[in-house]
Amino acid sequence: MNRKVRVGVNGYGVIGKRVADAVVLQDDMELTGVTYHKLDYRIRVAGVKGYPVYTCDNDPISLHAAMSINVAGTLDDLINQVDVMVDCTAKGLGAKNKLAYEKAGIKAVFQGGEKHDLTGVSFTAQVNYHEALNRQFVRVVSCNTTGLCRVMHALSRRNWIKKARVVLMRRASDPWESHNSGMINTVVPETKVPSHQGPDARTVLRGLNITTMAGTAPHNLSHIHYAMVETNHALTVKQVHDALYEEPRLAFVRADDGLGALNSVIELMRDLDRPRNDLWEVAVWEDALSVQENEIYLVFQVHNEAITIPEIIDAIRAVTGIETDAMRSIEKTNCSLGITKNYLSQCFAEKVLNTTG
Amino acid sequence: MNRKVRVGVNGYGVIGKRVADAVVLQDDMELTGVTYHKLDYRIRVAGVKGYPVYTCDNDPISLHAAMSINVAGTLDDLINQVDVMVDCTAKGLGAKNKLAYEKAGIKAVFQGGEKHDLTGVSFTAQVNYHEALNRQFVRVVSCNTTGLCRVMHALSRRNWIKKARVVLMRRASDPWESHNSGMINTVVPETKVPSHQGPDARTVLRGLNITTMAGTAPHNLSHIHYAMVETNHALTVKQVHDALYEEPRLAFVRADDGLGALNSVIELMRDLDRPRNDLWEVAVWEDALSVQENEIYLVFQVHNEAITIPEIIDAIRAVTGIETDAMRSIEKTNCSLGITKNYLSQCFAEKVLNTTG
Amino acid sequence: MNRKVRVGVNGYGVIGKRVADAVVLQDDMELTGVTYHKLDYRIRVAGVKGYPVYTCDNDPISLHAAMSINVAGTLDDLINQVDVMVDCTAKGLGAKNKLAYEKAGIKAVFQGGEKHDLTGVSFTAQVNYHEALNRQFVRVVSCNTTGLCRVMHALSRRNWIKKARVVLMRRASDPWESHNSGMINTVVPETKVPSHQGPDARTVLRGLNITTMAGTAPHNLSHIHYAMVETNHALTVKQVHDALYEEPRLAFVRADDGLGALNSVIELMRDLDRPRNDLWEVAVWEDALSVQENEIYLVFQVHNEAITIPEIIDAIRAVTGIETDAMRSIEKTNCSLGITKNYLSQCFAEKVLNTTG
Amino acid sequence: MNRKVRVGVNGYGVIGKRVADAVVLQDDMELTGVTYHKLDYRIRVAGVKGYPVYTCDNDPISLHAAMSINVAGTLDDLINQVDVMVDCTAKGLGAKNKLAYEKAGIKAVFQGGEKHDLTGVSFTAQVNYHEALNRQFVRVVSCNTTGLCRVMHALSRRNWIKKARVVLMRRASDPWESHNSGMINTVVPETKVPSHQGPDARTVLRGLNITTMAGTAPHNLSHIHYAMVETNHALTVKQVHDALYEEPRLAFVRADDGLGALNSVIELMRDLDRPRNDLWEVAVWEDALSVQENEIYLVFQVHNEAITIPEIIDAIRAVTGIETDAMRSIEKTNCSLGITKNYLSQCFAEKVLNTTG
Repeated sequence: MNRKVRVGVNGYGVIGKRVADAVVLQDDMELTGVTYHKLDYRIRVAGVKGYPVYTCDNDPISLHAAMSINVAGTLDDLINQVDVMVDCTAKGLGAKNKLAYEKAGIKAVFQGGEKHDLTGVSFTAQVNYHEALNRQFVRVVSCNTTGLCRVMHALSRRNWIKKARVVLMRRASDPWESHNSGMINTVVPETKVPSHQGPDARTVLRGLNITTMAGTAPHNLSHIHYAMVETNHALTVKQVHDALYEEPRLAFVRADDGLGALNSVIELMRDLDRPRNDLWEVAVWEDALSVQENEIYLVFQVHNEAITIPEIIDAIRAVTGIETDAMRSIEKTNCSLGITKNYLSQCFAEKVLNTTG
Repeated sequence: MNRKVRVGVNGYGVIGKRVADAVVLQDDMELTGVTYHKLDYRIRVAGVKGYPVYTCDNDPISLHAAMSINVAGTLDDLINQVDVMVDCTAKGLGAKNKLAYEKAGIKAVFQGGEKHDLTGVSFTAQVNYHEALNRQFVRVVSCNTTGLCRVMHALSRRNWIKKARVVLMRRASDPWESHNSGMINTVVPETKVPSHQGPDARTVLRGLNITTMAGTAPHNLSHIHYAMVETNHALTVKQVHDALYEEPRLAFVRADDGLGALNSVIELMRDLDRPRNDLWEVAVWEDALSVQENEIYLVFQVHNEAITIPEIIDAIRAVTGIETDAMRSIEKTNCSLGITKNYLSQCFAEKVLNTTG
Repeated sequence: MNRKVRVGVNGYGVIGKRVADAVVLQDDMELTGVTYHKLDYRIRVAGVKGYPVYTCDNDPISLHAAMSINVAGTLDDLINQVDVMVDCTAKGLGAKNKLAYEKAGIKAVFQGGEKHDLTGVSFTAQVNYHEALNRQFVRVVSCNTTGLCRVMHALSRRNWIKKARVVLMRRASDPWESHNSGMINTVVPETKVPSHQGPDARTVLRGLNITTMAGTAPHNLSHIHYAMVETNHALTVKQVHDALYEEPRLAFVRADDGLGALNSVIELMRDLDRPRNDLWEVAVWEDALSVQENEIYLVFQVHNEAITIPEIIDAIRAVTGIETDAMRSIEKTNCSLGITKNYLSQCFAEKVLNTTG
Repeated sequence: MNRKVRVGVNGYGVIGKRVADAVVLQDDMELTGVTYHKLDYRIRVAGVKGYPVYTCDNDPISLHAAMSINVAGTLDDLINQVDVMVDCTAKGLGAKNKLAYEKAGIKAVFQGGEKHDLTGVSFTAQVNYHEALNRQFVRVVSCNTTGLCRVMHALSRRNWIKKARVVLMRRASDPWESHNSGMINTVVPETKVPSHQGPDARTVLRGLNITTMAGTAPHNLSHIHYAMVETNHALTVKQVHDALYEEPRLAFVRADDGLGALNSVIELMRDLDRPRNDLWEVAVWEDALSVQENEIYLVFQVHNEAITIPEIIDAIRAVTGIETDAMRSIEKTNCSLGITKNYLSQCFAEKVLNTTG
């Protein structure tokens, strides 16, 4: 395909608006348009940025135009103009939307809120890009599952994992909606034990022996994972560090560099001029990385608003087949966003490792 | 000893004020007095309650009296009048205070902020009461360690534990000081991995194979523990439930009874007219209790302000020898406070267990 | 009426459960029963406390009984057994319930969530007890309005107020529901300006010249009010202090006694063994009380869970006519709850006033 | 002066790092260097951005270099190379630093943490640029005072203000430090009443009749101000709206556009790709703007991290005299940052005003 892939974004919320911004940065894609479900500042900004906006509801387009927003058409119009739709609508709408995409014969990338069965392929670029190649429908797994897959992949590809045990503490709401959603001064444990993230990771990393427990804490800045990974044989901290270091989109941060908490890592994103202070990498605390006998201890941050964005860009390439090699797509995406290979660790982690192991 | 044990409380903060209130409820103890380090509403309330107050600083007593508080004497005066001092001073002052107690020949109970070596005996009533019998100095372990010891004791006494892995999410500050202490909208992972609670639990439960990781969340209502306990052989949920049920000061709560988070369990304490809404028990979520193959999954709440109070009362009995039997002391303490045997679970948990296991 | 007034409580939530506990403490009232709308730990505690519980829904009573709660009957049964019903159901249900009370010919006390027109009488005990005497229906105004009425009454009865301007910062949710309700890391301004509390205060304090603005902050511990009261002539701080001191259910707290924030005042309630750490008084910061020329500056705390409870008890006496004198009812209620006249200020505020004015 | 003004930034914290980024964007300034007091990720990012970094402490430069940061020299070296220093050191260090600047004969811009007397000129660009022209030392007032001056200037220049009453609710800590600073689940009222912001505003807007009260809420996203401005005569909402609209760096936001709280306005900054999601304008809620008789009601957001940055850039021009006209400097600064005249209001507020007045 010589021309650029025409990409539509259905739903302009937390994920959709980021996908649109990322698509615009790709030289092999063009953003045909975005749809919106609610007339508020968010879609107005899309207009300010020059993105063609399409409406999803049944109001006449003239009505929206009267409310000072230029509407290019309806969702159906957009569907008919794109090669691939990134479906960023609310959880559970995917099945219905898929029918429309099927009817129009376009490809689609769904989010982790949908079930694996919707597409039959669940995706994390560095793990199973090849599985998504030229498929019509692919599901990029959720933020937490993406984080787990990136970290565990570094260990499982070396056949190190005997059993991974992870406790996830989730954020209570996203920043944009925190005025009418959230919790106050409490922690909510998930009573479904083990939680769903473990099985969900296995839709990408088949056969991974992992079990997860979860809860929610009263803040809106990223999830945090505590992993205790039982290994098949004794490893050194250096071995584990090297394995993690090789993975793309996984970066080390150090508490002794002032990056001792979720907020300070996000502050680093602000200082680095990342758009919306997005942390696309899994940030692994280097000074908390520890090994004891046959067990690895890891703490890492998963920025739920941002982590799947590069995966979605790669998924677009995979389903459209414009790039058949995973690492070339990953590299291309990373360059466009400014994810230098282990950029964070290069800047901040040139220190002696801790030596627990 | 026919007369009541004379108890002093050195330090009238979060723990000290609760110890004083609990001592007053015991028919074999009398509260000789409490000391204070700062003149504020807290010690004034002690005066309102009729507790003799002693000052720790060098100001003349007349000065304190002039500030509308009746001072019965100095710390030295109090030391000379008691059989046992409960040392509730700030972390790390214990070693210095111990010298004064030794000089006066009185017994003392220290808190978990001090190191095990200070006393050589670390205490959780239901685990090792006998070790503390007639000792001069005993250390009641910290809130988190107390919670761990109570839960793990139920399993370790049955030789079930192969390895326990626990992730603790701590509260950021205590309610009384939350206006000038705390954190905002973040989670802080502890970079010391494994964290100190695992080894600390072994000062009470010798030989326990346990490893812990920790962090702090932005709230002030209790700690929460996620435990994954690998067992020596397969167990049923019922076996685990029965084992936990037998332990004193461990109670079940159910999310499907509306008790789905730290705040709702504390609300239950409010409804039950518990003083200061104190939760003396470890609250274990019954509907999150799960067993898979050789692994038990547990989530429990540790109310850091309150959980060690009954332990301290028992420790007083142990060091003074007025009660030589652990269960009789525990029962006596529980009755005085209103900790009916598995009170919470009796009220709220008469349901069919979940059947994951 | 020689026998005790029979009181029912319709709705066992934040207000209802406190009303029930307070009714039990009155020697001229008996608690006939409480109703519940949801089967959870809250109503189970009512059972543990021995309160007869009635169900509001249409399920057969046997069903509830099967779920281990003894049900004495339905709401209709309760209505037929009481002299007065305290309606503590959710906001907006009052109109419908009123029909049932009217039909049964019983009296009823409604909450501030209902509109003034529902009853025609809006009530704050120390302001207009007489208006409620022997009325069938009375509305106790909301927590914020109650706080405003108590404070402003001290000033308006002396004809001091030219214009009162108040900014209210509300709490985001109540503790019991804070796991699924609230906000995170933000403040929400109310865009209706002036806000409704000003007009609402005039339903009790007729002709009061007051205007209010409001917002919500991310916590669950009480509201806070900042009042700037323009006066008809110059006053001294002492004059204002004396006027406030004379009011019942208004107490001074001092930041320099350690009571410098919402949390520390609530901690004082914990230390004082108040049930559920309830602050029934308006707490006025004595060291923030200031006067400049013709303007009074006041900051005060309104504990939304608790402040209306004594008002409701007084309202029961007023509508049933068992006490015709406001101050006698107030005194009776205060004694039963332990609200010593200016108890807090007696304990803590025997200091020289600040001297800005 | 034909060459660019050489600017140093002493202190690379919340303000300093933003000033450095803004200086780099000016075509009449060059960033000679920044100093740092602590070796952490923040100053490493300065290095990544190519800013020359200077050390303030006495460690040999070689030591810092060994810690993988290139150090260009010491503070003294930097002082000797600049025309003007922006002093962004911690509050209260200004007096000491001023001596060094005086000795070197350079100009300096201080922050609002310093007292007015340090410089004799307190600065808000649109109010009193001329007063700072060619002065050696100027103080840019604090974030809250800057916000007050911008808003009140629109009204006071028209002689509308009889008396302004403002309640400020401050944020508890800044995002970068929120892991070890802040408060939990409470509000802290300031007991100094009136608070210092009123008098501080008069260092810029002489003779302004203003009184302020303050408090702190448990979040880290901007301050919020509630203003009740008594006017000399009756005004319409439109008059007030027009007056505010004319001011630079003041923008309207609307709750009914989804911008109903501090977090959503900051989310808009994220969507607009503002660096670090900075809101340089005062954001005034258009749908809360109200007028009743002789009183204006206003609610506005003051982003404490960002609001003074454009003021500081203007102050550099004023003290160095490279631009003698206030509006030309303001326009130049605004263009460089992307502060289109009333950008936010142009995009979002083309609606019918509310019509309370």
